[in-house]
Amino acid sequence: MLYPQHLLKLIYALKRLPGVGNKSAERFAFHLLGWSETHLNEIKEAIEAISTHIKHCSQCGCIQDMEACLFCHESRLDAKKMCVVASARDVFAIEATHTYKGLYHVLGALLSPIHGKGPEHLAIDALKQRLIEHQIQEVVFALDSTLEGDATSLYLKKELEPLSVHVSRLAFGMPMGSSLDYVDSGTLARALSNRSLF
Amino acid sequence: MLYPQHLLKLIYALKRLPGVGNKSAERFAFHLLGWSETHLNEIKEAIEAISTHIKHCSQCGCIQDMEACLFCHESRLDAKKMCVVASARDVFAIEATHTYKGLYHVLGALLSPIHGKGPEHLAIDALKQRLIEHQIQEVVFALDSTLEGDATSLYLKKELEPLSVHVSRLAFGMPMGSSLDYVDSGTLARALSNRSLF
Repeated sequence: MLYPQHLLKLIYALKRLPGVGNKSAERFAFHLLGWSETHLNEIKEAIEAISTHIKHCSQCGCIQDMEACLFCHESRLDAKKMCVVASARDVFAIEATHTYKGLYHVLGALLSPIHGKGPEHLAIDALKQRLIEHQIQEVVFALDSTLEGDATSLYLKKELEPLSVHVSRLAFGMPMGSSLDYVDSGTLARALSNRSLF
Repeated sequence: MLYPQHLLKLIYALKRLPGVGNKSAERFAFHLLGWSETHLNEIKEAIEAISTHIKHCSQCGCIQDMEACLFCHESRLDAKKMCVVASARDVFAIEATHTYKGLYHVLGALLSPIHGKGPEHLAIDALKQRLIEHQIQEVVFALDSTLEGDATSLYLKKELEPLSVHVSRLAFGMPMGSSLDYVDSGTLARALSNRSLF
C-alpha cells in the first residue's frame, strides 16, 4: 500500500483491537485523521492513563483508579461469599445485576492448554489464602460456559475441596426473553434437567 | 456504571470511532487494559504522529509524511488530468486500481446542506486555480454515488463550465448507494475506465 508510514503504523496498531481487521482499522485511522486536536489528546491521555492510573487491586485483581478498591470494601466482608471470575470485566457485569454483595476474585485467565494457559496462570494460591483469611463460606464460580470455563470450574472445585467451603456455580438455563425455537438443544437440555418448582 | 473514572474516559474516547457503540468501546477498552507497555506505546505514538507527522499537501490535499507529496510529483503533470475526490482516503483507493496516472484534488467534503456543508466547505477556488495552472484537459469526478456525491458533481460541473475542460465522472459500474470506502478495487477500476462524459 501507498499509505504514509505513520498512517500504516496507526492502522497496524488499531488492528490489535479485538474484531478489527484491515478494513476497520483503515476506517478508524482515517476517521482519527479528521479528529480535532482536543479529541486526539483525550484518547491519547486515556491510553496513557492505562499504565499510570488504572491499577489492578492486589487483593481481588479487579481494576481500580489509584484509590482503594471498591470491591474489597469492608462492607462486603460480612456476606462471607466470594465470586470467582476470569477477568476484571466480568466483575462489572455481575455488579450490574445488583444481586450479589460479596467479595470477588479475578483469576486472570481460564485453563486452556492449547493457548499455554495452565493452572500456574490462575491466581489460585491467592484465592485459597483469601478464602481462609476472610472465612468465606461460599465460593460462587461465575465462569464462561465454554470448554475452558468448565475445565477451570472442575479444576478449582477439586483444588478447593480440602478447604470445605460451599462451592456453587451460575445456573444454566434459558436466557431471559428467549424463545424455545432459538435456544440450542444443549441449553434446552440443561434447562429441562434443572427445572424448578413453579 | 461503576467503571473507574479513567476507564470511563477511555471508553468515551473510543466511542467516537465510526461504528463503535457502548459495547464495542467497552470491549476495546478492556482489551487495551491487557496490552503490553510496548503495544500501548505504539498506539499512543501513532496517534501522536497524526498531529506531528501526517500532513495534508497544500496543493492537492492528500495526506503525506513530512516529505514532498507523492501525488503532486511532476511525472503526473503530463497526463493533463485531474481527479476530484471528497477525501484523502479516496486517493488511495483509486491508486490501488493502477488505472489512473494524473493529478488529484481533494475537496475535503461533499455538499450536504443538512450537515451544514455548503460550497464554501469545498476547495473549489483552489481547484479552479490548479486546473488553469496545470493546463488540465480532463477533470474526472470520483465522488460517492450518493445524494451528496451527485449534488456535488452537478454543482462542480456548473462551476467548471467557464473553464472549458472536459468533465467526466466514474461509470455507473459502481453499486448504487455505496461509498468509495467499500468498493473493491476491481469494480473501481471498471468504473474509472468506463467513465462517461458529464
